[in-house]
Amino acid sequence: MDNIEKDQLWMREALRLASHGRYTARPNPCVGAVLVKNDQIVARAWHQGRGEAHAEVQALEAAGENSRDATCYITLEPCAHHGYTPPCCEALVEAGVRRVVVSMRDPNPKVDGQGLAYLQEKGIEVSVGVLEEEARELNKAFIKRMTVHQPWLSFKLAMTLDGKISDYAGNSQWISDESARKEVQILRASHAAVISTATTVIADNSRLNVRELPPDFPEACKDKFKQPLRVLLDRKLDIDFQHPFFEAEGDILIYTQAPMEMQKRKHMQIVPMPMDENRYFSISAILEDLSQREINSVLVEAGGRFAAEMLQSALVDEWIIYMSSKVLGEKAKSAFAIDKALELSASLALKFQSVSMCGPDIKIIASKIGDNHGLC
Amino acid sequence: MDNIEKDQLWMREALRLASHGRYTARPNPCVGAVLVKNDQIVARAWHQGRGEAHAEVQALEAAGENSRDATCYITLEPCAHHGYTPPCCEALVEAGVRRVVVSMRDPNPKVDGQGLAYLQEKGIEVSVGVLEEEARELNKAFIKRMTVHQPWLSFKLAMTLDGKISDYAGNSQWISDESARKEVQILRASHAAVISTATTVIADNSRLNVRELPPDFPEACKDKFKQPLRVLLDRKLDIDFQHPFFEAEGDILIYTQAPMEMQKRKHMQIVPMPMDENRYFSISAILEDLSQREINSVLVEAGGRFAAEMLQSALVDEWIIYMSSKVLGEKAKSAFAIDKALELSASLALKFQSVSMCGPDIKIIASKIGDNHGLC
Repeated sequence: MDNIEKDQLWMREALRLASHGRYTARPNPCVGAVLVKNDQIVARAWHQGRGEAHAEVQALEAAGENSRDATCYITLEPCAHHGYTPPCCEALVEAGVRRVVVSMRDPNPKVDGQGLAYLQEKGIEVSVGVLEEEARELNKAFIKRMTVHQPWLSFKLAMTLDGKISDYAGNSQWISDESARKEVQILRASHAAVISTATTVIADNSRLNVRELPPDFPEACKDKFKQPLRVLLDRKLDIDFQHPFFEAEGDILIYTQAPMEMQKRKHMQIVPMPMDENRYFSISAILEDLSQREINSVLVEAGGRFAAEMLQSALVDEWIIYMSSKVLGEKAKSAFAIDKALELSASLALKFQSVSMCGPDIKIIASKIGDNHGLC
Repeated sequence: MDNIEKDQLWMREALRLASHGRYTARPNPCVGAVLVKNDQIVARAWHQGRGEAHAEVQALEAAGENSRDATCYITLEPCAHHGYTPPCCEALVEAGVRRVVVSMRDPNPKVDGQGLAYLQEKGIEVSVGVLEEEARELNKAFIKRMTVHQPWLSFKLAMTLDGKISDYAGNSQWISDESARKEVQILRASHAAVISTATTVIADNSRLNVRELPPDFPEACKDKFKQPLRVLLDRKLDIDFQHPFFEAEGDILIYTQAPMEMQKRKHMQIVPMPMDENRYFSISAILEDLSQREINSVLVEAGGRFAAEMLQSALVDEWIIYMSSKVLGEKAKSAFAIDKALELSASLALKFQSVSMCGPDIKIIASKIGDNHGLC
């Protein structure tokens, strides 16, 4: 095994560790670290979430004296600033680490190369870019918030083979099978927020929270599970506050145009949001507001009108479609409620990234046209 | 390698050879044969089509004196009756073959075990059932015609993500990408007949024939390519005989209710067919008529009304769906034109067997609910 292969091997282990943080690290990125000395791993660590020790600092502590002259593999550039914890770069220097291998630079403008520069100044050998693509995929939501100032936007759809999300009477329970519904619980748990419209929440009697901990949720931080923020778009504040949505666990944020006669409730915020010229919410404005609130990723679960708008806006990063083999016919409600007569040459489109079976259903991952997540 | 593994190894080779006949063997089954002596293959052969030598006879001829005491692996029971060629069983006995290994019994009532019985009477060791599942899959169309007296029925659909087959104006060229359209050429070439309605042929200006030889069409029988029989359902004989459909290569069969004032044309037959109580064609009656005409397999390429009927009739063995990532909205034409308001609990459904990417599109193979082709 040559040195490049060794670097990849240990960085892959660091990435595997980093991914343990996918349910709890937010709003921080997922980070993993591996300390290697004489071709042996002497410490492993991953970041559990804000306020907890950073991965590299945990690894240094675990390794103790073994840190001296070791190589530290970290999936993200170590920080050089005082945030919730002291800067990791100083800890690496103090521990006498000889070499630091990093998957990608930290897109956080507070770091963005300063950590690497600091280490180099202190005479530490620094390598950057090992398995960078995998690292970027793992933290795509954090990267998007840091660089675009909007959260990563996923849209989940459960539809029939003929593109319907409910029957003529609005009944949608259940279009997709149990396997898909279990996956939706995992999707909710891995997004910082779940967003829907009052119309959909009322029609489907949804609560949008996580009722079942993901089977791969790390034992080590079972007490750190956080419900996603549940975001409701409700122009006229139509929803009845007695709705089960308000009883369920998890914080609530309501965007509304209605006058601000606010009911005070714990775990709930009502935020005024102006409408655009078509009397719709500006989704961009909402995404920017959510980004300000340090929301890295948002999962949309909404109806056909909203899906149609989002398809046209091209704001969605990832469409996650569970397609059942049912057929409901033309009277049923469309997954994309577009009533404009589109010519084939002017049709809307996504870009399929991958497809697989999910129980008896099909799972499609799609992106915007032109995007290539490197997921395929 | 034990004897069971050896049998499977050589039968797998016989099946591979048999599959070369998938474009030309019809109405005969695909058959491959391998002669093995002292653990060495001494001859290989496959059946090219009616009137050509059967696989086992070709193999015996190729092996000559080496046939004596050899083992013959055949994917289908050898025939014991005089058909277009003399019975293969006699040839096997005369050549002094010691053992015959067969994948499956011939479902043809003219054979159906008689071949095996004959060989055993003559003192030849006979084994049946080696890789039988694969053999049945290869000849599923022939088996269905022999046992059910209807051809295997495949339904090909090219639709958008939202279940549309054309835009509001009826334009469907092209919903799916080039890769899918190339596959449709292969589908047509591998079915004995392609069936459509006059409405669809007129709307899409279709010819339903094969314009491009499949890339895996065997060199050895390039001259034996046969266009599929092109079957048109045309209740009132609405189609104009000047339509390009009639100029294209390949025989034509028209089912109609119209009075029999027949235009005589080469390569064309017009067959009267009574309507059912809803003034539709009885698809079962048509399938039985096609079976009488020794059509093993039929590919349906038709519109949303026909797809809806076929979905409800549960007559289709295999749905082959090319789904593009386009979205056409609610004004476009549905792949399943069902105008009845179905409740979710009464929805129609298929059973997904497999899914894969096909260029930028998705390819779904589905069967009737309850079917399991063992394709997955």
